Amino acid sequence: METGLSMWTVVVAAGSGTRFGTAKQYAALAGHRVVDRSVSTAALVSDGVVVVVPPLDVGAESARWGAAEVVAGGPSRAASVRNGLAAVPGDAAIICVHDAARPLADPDIYRRVVHEVRSGAAGAVPVVPVTDTIRRVDGGVVDRSTLRAVQTPQAFRAEVLQAAYADGADATDDAGLVEAAGHAVVAVEGHRRNIKITHPDDLAAAEVWLAT
Amino acid sequence: METGLSMWTVVVAAGSGTRFGTAKQYAALAGHRVVDRSVSTAALVSDGVVVVVPPLDVGAESARWGAAEVVAGGPSRAASVRNGLAAVPGDAAIICVHDAARPLADPDIYRRVVHEVRSGAAGAVPVVPVTDTIRRVDGGVVDRSTLRAVQTPQAFRAEVLQAAYADGADATDDAGLVEAAGHAVVAVEGHRRNIKITHPDDLAAAEVWLAT
Repeated sequence: METGLSMWTVVVAAGSGTRFGTAKQYAALAGHRVVDRSVSTAALVSDGVVVVVPPLDVGAESARWGAAEVVAGGPSRAASVRNGLAAVPGDAAIICVHDAARPLADPDIYRRVVHEVRSGAAGAVPVVPVTDTIRRVDGGVVDRSTLRAVQTPQAFRAEVLQAAYADGADATDDAGLVEAAGHAVVAVEGHRRNIKITHPDDLAAAEVWLAT
Repeated sequence: METGLSMWTVVVAAGSGTRFGTAKQYAALAGHRVVDRSVSTAALVSDGVVVVVPPLDVGAESARWGAAEVVAGGPSRAASVRNGLAAVPGDAAIICVHDAARPLADPDIYRRVVHEVRSGAAGAVPVVPVTDTIRRVDGGVVDRSTLRAVQTPQAFRAEVLQAAYADGADATDDAGLVEAAGHAVVAVEGHRRNIKITHPDDLAAAEVWLAT
């Protein structure tokens, strides 16, 4: 890829697995760890990859990932992304952020979000329709046709994402942070199988899909 | 169960499978059809079951379900529910409505929603947290902690549900219709595995969960 148009991906794998019961990024999925699948796909489509892992795991993961930069995560997802962004070279034009917990994200999804940013968008996110009826906690149905479920990888112009995170804001959603900074983010087609592993049941589902 | 407190379930299995590619209620799931699993569980916990199927299938399904009433569906989900409600005896005190496409709904979910209605609620629905980030189609993130994904079976006081549907309104969500009629609906804990089969991938996931 030409200099100045390089694309880097930050893979966020710094969670402690509070809900999953263990660090889900290290769970095995059809013979490979969840994080390994996420990093492999990112490496396939990116000029460089930064993997953000729990601080105690930096040594072991660095030894495993010769080609990727491994950095320590922080106390929140935003802090971890910020640490990852600090390791991305200044000449990167586009940065993707991907949650390691979505090991089934395929190169096509990366291509679709990156294409939008190369075409001029400040950011692009993959989305899928919401299939369940959605209610507000305080009562009342929300028209699900007005909603989309957002996945990762999400792609951004590097300077836009770096600036959004430079403010020190805490966000669980990168696109939301970029929008809060005044930039428009476009939605592209995600994939139903690109689920977030949040429970061992999800791992079992992902395993059967990988086999078909 | 005492007379006057009887609980009937309407299982809605009248879809044509436009999105699924075939009538998904007849797809096989670990050796039994999706609709068979839904009707079996409903029969286990209810005083009576009405199954609503596509008009052309009434004969074949009636022969299969000796213990359940089989009626023909209409051109919309609401029309199908209405046809089902017309077959529920007038002395039923509580009516559950269940989508056949959720074959993993277990007796515990029925018990939770029915318990709320027996305790005085006009209606009760099972919900689960929303795990994906949710965006509005027109931009902007919705705080997912304020949202819940709604499942079935949903339980209602019989007269409340019958009156809500008597108005001829068209709704895809029974609880929404009952709320629109001015009644409060309470939420109880659903189950992550109680998914709606909307794609063959969901069937594959359900199959692996049933085996574990």
